[in-house]
Amino acid sequence: MEFAQTDKVKELQAKAFDFLNELVIPAEPVYAQQEHEIGPWDTPPIIEDLKIEARARGLWNLFLPAIGLTNLEYAQIAEITGRSPWIMPEAMNCSAPDTGNMEVLHHFATPAVKDKWLPQLLDGKIRSVYSMTEPAVASSDANNIATRIYQEKGGFRIQGTKWWSSGAMSPNCKIAIVLGVTNPDGEKHKTQSMIAVPLDTPGVKILRSTGVFGESDGGHGGHAVIHYDDVWVPEDHLLGELHGGFAIGQARLGPGRIHHAMRLIGMAERAFDLMCERAKSRVAFGKTVAEQGVFQDWVAEARIKIEMVRLLVLKTAWLMDTVGNRGAAVEISAIKVAAPEMAAWVIDHAIQTFGGMGVSQDTPLARMYGQARMLRLADGPDEVHKMALARRELKRYTGK
Amino acid sequence: MEFAQTDKVKELQAKAFDFLNELVIPAEPVYAQQEHEIGPWDTPPIIEDLKIEARARGLWNLFLPAIGLTNLEYAQIAEITGRSPWIMPEAMNCSAPDTGNMEVLHHFATPAVKDKWLPQLLDGKIRSVYSMTEPAVASSDANNIATRIYQEKGGFRIQGTKWWSSGAMSPNCKIAIVLGVTNPDGEKHKTQSMIAVPLDTPGVKILRSTGVFGESDGGHGGHAVIHYDDVWVPEDHLLGELHGGFAIGQARLGPGRIHHAMRLIGMAERAFDLMCERAKSRVAFGKTVAEQGVFQDWVAEARIKIEMVRLLVLKTAWLMDTVGNRGAAVEISAIKVAAPEMAAWVIDHAIQTFGGMGVSQDTPLARMYGQARMLRLADGPDEVHKMALARRELKRYTGK
Amino acid sequence: MEFAQTDKVKELQAKAFDFLNELVIPAEPVYAQQEHEIGPWDTPPIIEDLKIEARARGLWNLFLPAIGLTNLEYAQIAEITGRSPWIMPEAMNCSAPDTGNMEVLHHFATPAVKDKWLPQLLDGKIRSVYSMTEPAVASSDANNIATRIYQEKGGFRIQGTKWWSSGAMSPNCKIAIVLGVTNPDGEKHKTQSMIAVPLDTPGVKILRSTGVFGESDGGHGGHAVIHYDDVWVPEDHLLGELHGGFAIGQARLGPGRIHHAMRLIGMAERAFDLMCERAKSRVAFGKTVAEQGVFQDWVAEARIKIEMVRLLVLKTAWLMDTVGNRGAAVEISAIKVAAPEMAAWVIDHAIQTFGGMGVSQDTPLARMYGQARMLRLADGPDEVHKMALARRELKRYTGK
Amino acid sequence: MEFAQTDKVKELQAKAFDFLNELVIPAEPVYAQQEHEIGPWDTPPIIEDLKIEARARGLWNLFLPAIGLTNLEYAQIAEITGRSPWIMPEAMNCSAPDTGNMEVLHHFATPAVKDKWLPQLLDGKIRSVYSMTEPAVASSDANNIATRIYQEKGGFRIQGTKWWSSGAMSPNCKIAIVLGVTNPDGEKHKTQSMIAVPLDTPGVKILRSTGVFGESDGGHGGHAVIHYDDVWVPEDHLLGELHGGFAIGQARLGPGRIHHAMRLIGMAERAFDLMCERAKSRVAFGKTVAEQGVFQDWVAEARIKIEMVRLLVLKTAWLMDTVGNRGAAVEISAIKVAAPEMAAWVIDHAIQTFGGMGVSQDTPLARMYGQARMLRLADGPDEVHKMALARRELKRYTGK
Repeated sequence: MEFAQTDKVKELQAKAFDFLNELVIPAEPVYAQQEHEIGPWDTPPIIEDLKIEARARGLWNLFLPAIGLTNLEYAQIAEITGRSPWIMPEAMNCSAPDTGNMEVLHHFATPAVKDKWLPQLLDGKIRSVYSMTEPAVASSDANNIATRIYQEKGGFRIQGTKWWSSGAMSPNCKIAIVLGVTNPDGEKHKTQSMIAVPLDTPGVKILRSTGVFGESDGGHGGHAVIHYDDVWVPEDHLLGELHGGFAIGQARLGPGRIHHAMRLIGMAERAFDLMCERAKSRVAFGKTVAEQGVFQDWVAEARIKIEMVRLLVLKTAWLMDTVGNRGAAVEISAIKVAAPEMAAWVIDHAIQTFGGMGVSQDTPLARMYGQARMLRLADGPDEVHKMALARRELKRYTGK
Repeated sequence: MEFAQTDKVKELQAKAFDFLNELVIPAEPVYAQQEHEIGPWDTPPIIEDLKIEARARGLWNLFLPAIGLTNLEYAQIAEITGRSPWIMPEAMNCSAPDTGNMEVLHHFATPAVKDKWLPQLLDGKIRSVYSMTEPAVASSDANNIATRIYQEKGGFRIQGTKWWSSGAMSPNCKIAIVLGVTNPDGEKHKTQSMIAVPLDTPGVKILRSTGVFGESDGGHGGHAVIHYDDVWVPEDHLLGELHGGFAIGQARLGPGRIHHAMRLIGMAERAFDLMCERAKSRVAFGKTVAEQGVFQDWVAEARIKIEMVRLLVLKTAWLMDTVGNRGAAVEISAIKVAAPEMAAWVIDHAIQTFGGMGVSQDTPLARMYGQARMLRLADGPDEVHKMALARRELKRYTGK
Repeated sequence: MEFAQTDKVKELQAKAFDFLNELVIPAEPVYAQQEHEIGPWDTPPIIEDLKIEARARGLWNLFLPAIGLTNLEYAQIAEITGRSPWIMPEAMNCSAPDTGNMEVLHHFATPAVKDKWLPQLLDGKIRSVYSMTEPAVASSDANNIATRIYQEKGGFRIQGTKWWSSGAMSPNCKIAIVLGVTNPDGEKHKTQSMIAVPLDTPGVKILRSTGVFGESDGGHGGHAVIHYDDVWVPEDHLLGELHGGFAIGQARLGPGRIHHAMRLIGMAERAFDLMCERAKSRVAFGKTVAEQGVFQDWVAEARIKIEMVRLLVLKTAWLMDTVGNRGAAVEISAIKVAAPEMAAWVIDHAIQTFGGMGVSQDTPLARMYGQARMLRLADGPDEVHKMALARRELKRYTGK
Repeated sequence: MEFAQTDKVKELQAKAFDFLNELVIPAEPVYAQQEHEIGPWDTPPIIEDLKIEARARGLWNLFLPAIGLTNLEYAQIAEITGRSPWIMPEAMNCSAPDTGNMEVLHHFATPAVKDKWLPQLLDGKIRSVYSMTEPAVASSDANNIATRIYQEKGGFRIQGTKWWSSGAMSPNCKIAIVLGVTNPDGEKHKTQSMIAVPLDTPGVKILRSTGVFGESDGGHGGHAVIHYDDVWVPEDHLLGELHGGFAIGQARLGPGRIHHAMRLIGMAERAFDLMCERAKSRVAFGKTVAEQGVFQDWVAEARIKIEMVRLLVLKTAWLMDTVGNRGAAVEISAIKVAAPEMAAWVIDHAIQTFGGMGVSQDTPLARMYGQARMLRLADGPDEVHKMALARRELKRYTGK
């Protein structure tokens, strides 16, 4: 085993930290100010300035395998972007769900669809949406998906309602990837298909947005409820094979979880920095908070938790690089559970350190907490992932 | 010991539950709708309708000792109001900080001040604000208070900045109770005074509001940052004795903590109801969520936690009724810690049960979570209360 | 609600505390010394001295309803006995499983059996054993019980193996109450019978004892594995109705859980005292442990936990007194879970406070921990009780 | 980063697993039986048989740097030995405190002392003891050490009482390493010396042994209380420099913590295996325990915790190999806290899975729990290590 970082990673990390400290963190108050001045679902203009800069610094589309980073390498950059989670990933064109959507288009779209949409996405000109979760059912059980996709008139007709279609409120969001049932009586994992749907297709009704702990996430286009009401798209909009949607979804998830997990570690590190700085400067009962035993206990627990989760995520990325998604299945479930829980713990203690200021808009902590908390639910609640992990482990035993 | 509820309490509870179920819960979506249609700090008009109804049903100002309820009796009503925490307490004119402020005015204001403000508050015509916490210092250590009150020109001049002055953004909020230092070199607990400040006094500058996990709490007048910039009020605006502010604050806190704690229990019960209903109706992996082992574990833990905290709060109320604030000091600290932690736990698990819907505005859960979380900080963080409790306990031991 | 203790209880508590402090705690090192000098399963002789004294002080058989205490009243005495759990309950003839066994004999034995055994038990002359749990099956699911009781030759023949038959290693233990299946195809809860078996009956084979975290509990007769190998007893040894064993077991459990739970609270209070005394006298890094923040946090948490569980157990006892076992079902499950968990937490932190001494025989803490930990398993693991509690709660919801 | 194991490690692991499964686990019941047949502090004879076998298999003294394994490499073998913690480390001559003592003798003893004792230890002929902790003070604060070492008559006179001198009850234990104060007024970390004391030196009084949760650990020579009563040894028995004892202790600790932590991981893996096997074979309420949701939740949590701690310990070992003890200081504290906590959690849940059997001598779980629990105290309680870790972290912040 070799825990040292490669020179390649060290260099990219240095560049990313410079970008973070020189431009991104200073941009946070500007972003917050602009959010109040623009339309509720518009992107604050400073993002465009930062994109230009990120591109100039060689920090663009790094998530993309074609760029040449392994999952393990990119993970270490994704962590840094998590320190300013509403700005830095987007500035580097590395934000969800676009990253996963670009991968899906790259691997599974027909040439016509790919040529139309992928270059614009890689260029950061437009955004995209992933329409999987449904309001009426427990979507973590894939068998529950109710949206139907019918083959009709040389194309596909889509009928159903999705929510948590993040980004779709943005006027800049142009294309959706939609999951629906094409083969209800097929064998398990062979019932669903994935399909590209331009958002200007007739019948696409964007109804409203759901917030996260009071935050609209307006700057990212919110989280839309979309009614696909007899929406028809041509045949070539099918992604991959007919009835092959489940497999595409699984392939998409692996890297996505690494990215989410590493960004959560970045959030935790930011919260850790904030709470330590605060504690050094704040005096109560005759000494700084930093000198108080209970606070020191939090610092130690936080550091231990962060470091353990980081190693686990990096090992998972390495497994994906070496034995693939399937060989890393236990670990992918593990980080889906461990990373948001750890981040929520650290952020929550940072909030407690700040007192009332911690729950307010005056620090990024409350919003980060909402983000970390939501990630215990998004892509399936913890409980589903723990069940899957446990069943896999238990197969090794016979009970004799 | 006798754990049975008195007939008096049972009757009031029945009335309160009727009001809750017939009018308050049905008013929740109306309230949410009106919040979007009115000014950002206005009170949704349905509150006025509910006030009339509450009054007609004998559910008005029940917190007020003069009404005839003990702390123990009122606590059991306050719990029910917590099930709809943004509507029901205010509808019954029993919401913080007005309850505590009315008590302070009743006991400590000069006749002129009392006659001017108290009847309007008791009538629910205006609201009031309690200006204690300061942004620049750790306010949980009372020695840190920096706002100064100077005796000057036959009155008092106030200079300082407060925040979390909840309610003050509302156009309907008219009077503040402000804590400041009058005697910086006095002995401990004899340095501060409390004073009434009409909000239209020159120099009162309401700067902005801080949110709670993304919620503005606009319908309740937000949480204002107020700069008291050379604000002068006449002598008769002093509340109680000069340099006696700390003691008034302490007297105010006891009942306030009972009310907060019982409302938190009500919130937890509401969350419990929501999560059980949801789990009964939601199917995943072949059975309802309610039939799944992990969920049942949560239900049991939640029920145990809620019931234990309820008994502790009721005992605390009983102690306050029989031996007073001082005799109940350990228990008052205990419920300050135990109630928000329990409520946050229950609400968090309800959120997890709802999946994505749980963090959104489609249930009251996320907002309730923010409220419960904030109450681990408001009036001093948990850690300060645990320290105080522990020191009191440790006095009983000699270490021999 | 009325949380005040009655004069009757206060007087008995004062007597019990006097007995504890004057005689029982001073007897602990004597008991420990005698344990090393006598046979491995003999009762240390000091117990007999203490019995005489307890009787003289009116502290004898207080658990017995005929003595005149309600469950609520006796609970408050049982708590005090838990402060010295290996000595005080037995000294007052109030230790498990004898208390439950005496109740069963009183209510369900035929006159002949009752007259033979009950007076000796009430007099503290002999001990008894409760043979329910079986090594080969998950006994928490009553359907799993494998021991068979056959009607034969005017009596009953018993065949099966039990373990955790606490006390049966003691030469002084004379009579067992055994649960077995008489009606395997009967309807649920009508398959088992309970029967009295004198331990000198041919075929009763006491094989060995199981320890608890390395403790033999020799002074209490250990925890025997008993093979009932074609053991025959006359017909009049049946307890209650044929096939009515399950109901007797349930009736026996209610008060037993109150007693266990209150003794656990007593253990927690003893651990709390020990840890506070220790912390006051121990200096590390320039101040006493009692002055250190993390320790103070434990003290506060411990006090809060203890007090909450106490109130819950007392309310449960009150419910049993007023609405019976069935009406208190949720609460009986609740205390079965909450009390050992709380006690284990407090004792564990006391151990940590003592350092190495805490895990050794030099304090009662390690042994108490084993006891509290075992009580999360005895009479069914926590998980079974939480499942039962949850299912009862969930019945109130319809999922509409 | 490269998480793959080297071929060298894989080969050694395979050998160690073969030894474990073929000989060590089958030896466990023999060891338990022999413990009852021999003197209370004798080593069960099967250990000698296993030593011969381990040596033949090339599994001897692997901890020793001279053998050629790095900390990172040896750690992965130490983990396997922890699966049978009372047998396998000793069988491979890799058990504490001998490993640390051999290192100290190797590096710091004079040739005469080294030649006399080290070969016998390396050969597994004798055992040794490390006498640091004292009963009268909080030894985690090194300033508290009270044992005095006086230069006298061309040698050193030692006066003091130590406890937790593990192994010293064994007749086979021949040599102690003792820490005491030689320079009470010296600067911090320059007050103590370390010295070798043959246990047959006049004045060495082995008083008694302290147990761990009821276990005497007799087969390993218990945990002795030793009174060094005017014990005189020649000058050449000093280890390293005069007043240099603190530094030797620190050097000794680093690898020791890695070993302890990895063995704890092995214990956790053994407990995990036991609980999964059990759950597969045990039926309750109509399905196996392995199919029940709450149990699956434990399995997932356990796997995640184990894997995270393993990675952290391996990284710590790698840091020690590459940047030394000092560069790994944060991580060494981290694993001291994280490993026993994790192991105790996993073992505790395995106990719960086994029901009553879990707390008894019929599985290794209860004894393992005691071991893991003790390691939250041995070499300083968690709280001290967390304080040290936090202070180091906080140095990076300025509070501006």
